[in-house]
Amino acid sequence: MSHAARGRHRGPPVGAGRANGRTLPQRRAARPRRRGTLHAMYRTVLVTLSDKGAAGEREDTAADAVRAALGAHAGAPFEEVGYELLPDERPRLRARLRLWCDGGDADLVLTIGGTGLGARDRTPEATRDVLDREVPGLAERMRAVGMQATPKAALSRAVVGVRGGTMIVNLPGSAKGARESLEAILDVLPHALDVLRGEGRGDPSAWHA
Amino acid sequence: MSHAARGRHRGPPVGAGRANGRTLPQRRAARPRRRGTLHAMYRTVLVTLSDKGAAGEREDTAADAVRAALGAHAGAPFEEVGYELLPDERPRLRARLRLWCDGGDADLVLTIGGTGLGARDRTPEATRDVLDREVPGLAERMRAVGMQATPKAALSRAVVGVRGGTMIVNLPGSAKGARESLEAILDVLPHALDVLRGEGRGDPSAWHA
Amino acid sequence: MSHAARGRHRGPPVGAGRANGRTLPQRRAARPRRRGTLHAMYRTVLVTLSDKGAAGEREDTAADAVRAALGAHAGAPFEEVGYELLPDERPRLRARLRLWCDGGDADLVLTIGGTGLGARDRTPEATRDVLDREVPGLAERMRAVGMQATPKAALSRAVVGVRGGTMIVNLPGSAKGARESLEAILDVLPHALDVLRGEGRGDPSAWHA
Repeated sequence: MSHAARGRHRGPPVGAGRANGRTLPQRRAARPRRRGTLHAMYRTVLVTLSDKGAAGEREDTAADAVRAALGAHAGAPFEEVGYELLPDERPRLRARLRLWCDGGDADLVLTIGGTGLGARDRTPEATRDVLDREVPGLAERMRAVGMQATPKAALSRAVVGVRGGTMIVNLPGSAKGARESLEAILDVLPHALDVLRGEGRGDPSAWHA
Repeated sequence: MSHAARGRHRGPPVGAGRANGRTLPQRRAARPRRRGTLHAMYRTVLVTLSDKGAAGEREDTAADAVRAALGAHAGAPFEEVGYELLPDERPRLRARLRLWCDGGDADLVLTIGGTGLGARDRTPEATRDVLDREVPGLAERMRAVGMQATPKAALSRAVVGVRGGTMIVNLPGSAKGARESLEAILDVLPHALDVLRGEGRGDPSAWHA
Repeated sequence: MSHAARGRHRGPPVGAGRANGRTLPQRRAARPRRRGTLHAMYRTVLVTLSDKGAAGEREDTAADAVRAALGAHAGAPFEEVGYELLPDERPRLRARLRLWCDGGDADLVLTIGGTGLGARDRTPEATRDVLDREVPGLAERMRAVGMQATPKAALSRAVVGVRGGTMIVNLPGSAKGARESLEAILDVLPHALDVLRGEGRGDPSAWHA
């Protein structure tokens, strides 16, 4: 099973101390980027945004759904290297995203929740605050696929983009929405992460280059 | 018939004095937000952008088409609480949008016109000037549905978003384009407006939350 | 054959001196805008972004693919009035785009390349730097059509918009991607350029106006 960290995180965040509502990053093994290896691992961080979740009033079933979707993708071994459960606060999320992207420990950050029209939903804004470059096509694809199941998918304001060498993908906060959104782009994520790492550069067949 | 104000506005704006080209808001009855009622009413404002319309040189058939589409949606009683006909001027539209959103009298503002590539088409820019948060999926959906009828729908630069508790939706200026765009999102608008009001919060099945 | 300049540019830029890696604009005949003529010509500039191409290490097959697509469109005579091959450098592209748009010599600038996630891909950012108004629907359409062939089309970050009276369209850098993207919007480009020129204004049937 490629999703090594999966079991560790089914319950509350393990190794992530929470004091005064703050969530601390988990201890991570030093893991140099493996360039050019045949079976790359994509170091993946899950960050759930949920006031009720952060207050301990709700199980984070959406994160579990995301883990299931990641593990089910045979060709793309995503390794969970971090998990956080934060309240819906734009400055805090912004700070955490910066840390994950700039620390060199994550290839992919999946945020979960805060993409809708609720009074405290500010995940897209916090994400855009830190992005170098947006990748609108992945957000469009998540919504277009989602709308085939429910027109309400049009209300997800999810943003996708990159900061430095890390990609950030916003997923909706419902288990169903998060899973369907991720699955809509899972076929193309490995290639995107390879290009971001500097692999696959100069590929003359790359449609999007 | 749920669309109570419909008849009043078939001709030029009633109760909307125009002096020196300025359009004044109509008198509105004080109408507190009804939270949690079974059959919510969505207080809707129509703002048409048209130099020729504002000069009295063209009938506002697009607004009529929008009214017909709103009234035809059985489950979503939209109540027209204001109508304005403005020339294509970004600062003025911006000011009017701010007033409608911040005054607490409108749940939904539908602008009509000014979304294309014409020299004076600046509705999306004026809208973006005042938005707190964009909802790109609704604009994407309007265009995607429109393109099924005509590829020219790709040229609509319409923006959708929210300012405070009010949603703003840009519609194209042709009667056909305005109606088709609105119909493309009409099934999901009531839910969006409910979430914006604070109803439906905490709904674990909300795909987009 | 409507694509008059086609033969001239199959090899390296003719009439475009390159010193210290800089590409100078080609000499162009003074060509007043023809308004209201039956068969309008759209003065088209191709700007390819490619470090390897600019260094003379790669043939610009993508530009050839774009020329083929332009020439194949019977109803829309695009005339190539300029061609440049630049390295992937945001400030230089920005400067060239400004010059082409503000000089009054181009109706359409097609950039080729630099739309992906590679470390030096900054074409969308340079484009957005100079745009007055974005036309998101054309970028959405290019990606949506591209995704029918390959999900990787979602990774194109291409932007479309206008500056003054000139439209700028980003195309991907692969021959296949560039051709497919252009073909996805070729049916609507002439109408878009006509509206931008001030023709077709006041057309009440314009869906997007």
